[in-house]
Amino acid sequence: EDESYFDSYSHFDIHHQMLQDKVRTESYRDFMLNNKEYFKDKIVLDVGCGTGILSMFAVKAGASHVIGVDQSEIIYQAMDIVRENGLENKITLLKGRLEDVELPYKQVDIIISEWMGYFLLFESMLDTVLVARDRYLKPGGMVFPDICTISVTAISDFKLYNKDVLFWDDVYGFKMTCLKSEVIKEACVDIIKNDTVVTDPCVLKTIDVSDCQLSDLQFKSEFNLTMTRDGEITAFIGYFNIYFQKHLSQPVEFSTGPEATPTHWKQTVFLLPKPLSLKKGEEIKGVLSCKKNRKDPRSLVISLTYNDKRHIYIME
Amino acid sequence: EDESYFDSYSHFDIHHQMLQDKVRTESYRDFMLNNKEYFKDKIVLDVGCGTGILSMFAVKAGASHVIGVDQSEIIYQAMDIVRENGLENKITLLKGRLEDVELPYKQVDIIISEWMGYFLLFESMLDTVLVARDRYLKPGGMVFPDICTISVTAISDFKLYNKDVLFWDDVYGFKMTCLKSEVIKEACVDIIKNDTVVTDPCVLKTIDVSDCQLSDLQFKSEFNLTMTRDGEITAFIGYFNIYFQKHLSQPVEFSTGPEATPTHWKQTVFLLPKPLSLKKGEEIKGVLSCKKNRKDPRSLVISLTYNDKRHIYIME
Repeated sequence: EDESYFDSYSHFDIHHQMLQDKVRTESYRDFMLNNKEYFKDKIVLDVGCGTGILSMFAVKAGASHVIGVDQSEIIYQAMDIVRENGLENKITLLKGRLEDVELPYKQVDIIISEWMGYFLLFESMLDTVLVARDRYLKPGGMVFPDICTISVTAISDFKLYNKDVLFWDDVYGFKMTCLKSEVIKEACVDIIKNDTVVTDPCVLKTIDVSDCQLSDLQFKSEFNLTMTRDGEITAFIGYFNIYFQKHLSQPVEFSTGPEATPTHWKQTVFLLPKPLSLKKGEEIKGVLSCKKNRKDPRSLVISLTYNDKRHIYIME
Repeated sequence: EDESYFDSYSHFDIHHQMLQDKVRTESYRDFMLNNKEYFKDKIVLDVGCGTGILSMFAVKAGASHVIGVDQSEIIYQAMDIVRENGLENKITLLKGRLEDVELPYKQVDIIISEWMGYFLLFESMLDTVLVARDRYLKPGGMVFPDICTISVTAISDFKLYNKDVLFWDDVYGFKMTCLKSEVIKEACVDIIKNDTVVTDPCVLKTIDVSDCQLSDLQFKSEFNLTMTRDGEITAFIGYFNIYFQKHLSQPVEFSTGPEATPTHWKQTVFLLPKPLSLKKGEEIKGVLSCKKNRKDPRSLVISLTYNDKRHIYIME
């Protein structure tokens, strides 16, 4: 009920934001249009096709036919869009869950999908891509993007820390300290300035979409971050990198890290209950585990253990 | 389903944003703390109390007792907050719909509430305040804020128009023109720069919360805007002003208009299907009607008629 207030109450806003995210959309475009020899005469499946933009790129790249599947109402607009661009003989759009719809082909050569959520795995749309892969991909076929990494680094950002944590100590003269731990527990997404980063980054997990299993999407990884300058760590941040590479003559990649152009995924922020003061060259070691919430498999439970203490964060 | 992606997935984010909106929160604070003689020994009802901040201001202003009612889970945090500030003998918090809960007093002297939504009336929380007024307010008692106005003006903002409307003509080389009218139809909220305003404003509606009726919250008003310079109108914008005034020695007011400090309500934008070119001094006359959506009374259907043509906008 509360949440509804800040819902994007425009039904197209999410698609508008994704299309306007040039890092995202141009990466998919370049991966396809710069690798036309790979797409020539291929059958392509677009999982979660939205407005159909990726399906249209695939046709432009030379695919003989593209099937787009989406369970959202947006697919009716995608049908209009495909007609508007004269591509209705090249693209078949199906409304429904990928798990339920019947495709016009038993097998496809290439699966494309933009399934990524915050911290890569929030909302778990990759699960559906793996179903599509196991059910429809020809032997030797490929899923793109194929490689994804999840990384962590640490920041010293007291502007953010004051706004999100210390704020509750004095709210117009009243104490709301009891809200602090509740707020910290909810990982948030925000665009982090790269000059607040105080350690080198560490890759926690590499996922190869062409052969990973569902069980790989829950993981536990050690990390070891080295301070690049003296500073007080106020938060760990997580982000992901995406690679379109195997079998391609012109690989494409993009990063959602703080050093790169911001995307609509921003960075995921794990605020510390207490800032940690460290000197340049010192290391902070820890373990991050990422699990699905049993009660709601689209949401994530992330635990961060460092200095012998475990901190739980949720994304829901 | 689509919308969930951009949900504020933090449960506290809405309260955090409202508290951090200084224009909003300090106006309520100043209205109470600058009018202590009015609050002294009064029984106050806070409708939709959230974190309890307004209830605590009321105690600080001298109220003998405050009852806060909220149907959201946030009230459990409000209970902790009230205890943390040692005000548990002064504030009674009740979880539930105002229409359903049983108050510890049959009548109250003052009702306070921060019920305003986008374009003032989106989400219709004022309906509940009117129930509280008619059921619990003592004869001669007051509801604050007491006066609200809704205004309209026009802007020439091609940056916004390109992003939201013309964008669909060429999306990475494809046409998505069919989405234009769908996008325009959904009124959006955005922070509008005051230097894009090209007409004077016009007050559409004044609501006196102390004696208005439910039927007053759906209205139809003529407007007449005069161009303050030559320009092409790309959108009408709506906003509201809030007044705490009757019986107060120190009245307080704030505006959510483009000339004022931005608030979390921003401005409501009604994009034009086609920009309208006008000269300085020329007038644009029209009629705006605002109705509840019968299928979902929290959402609004707004029609704008000008140049003999009617345009429908929805907020849902």
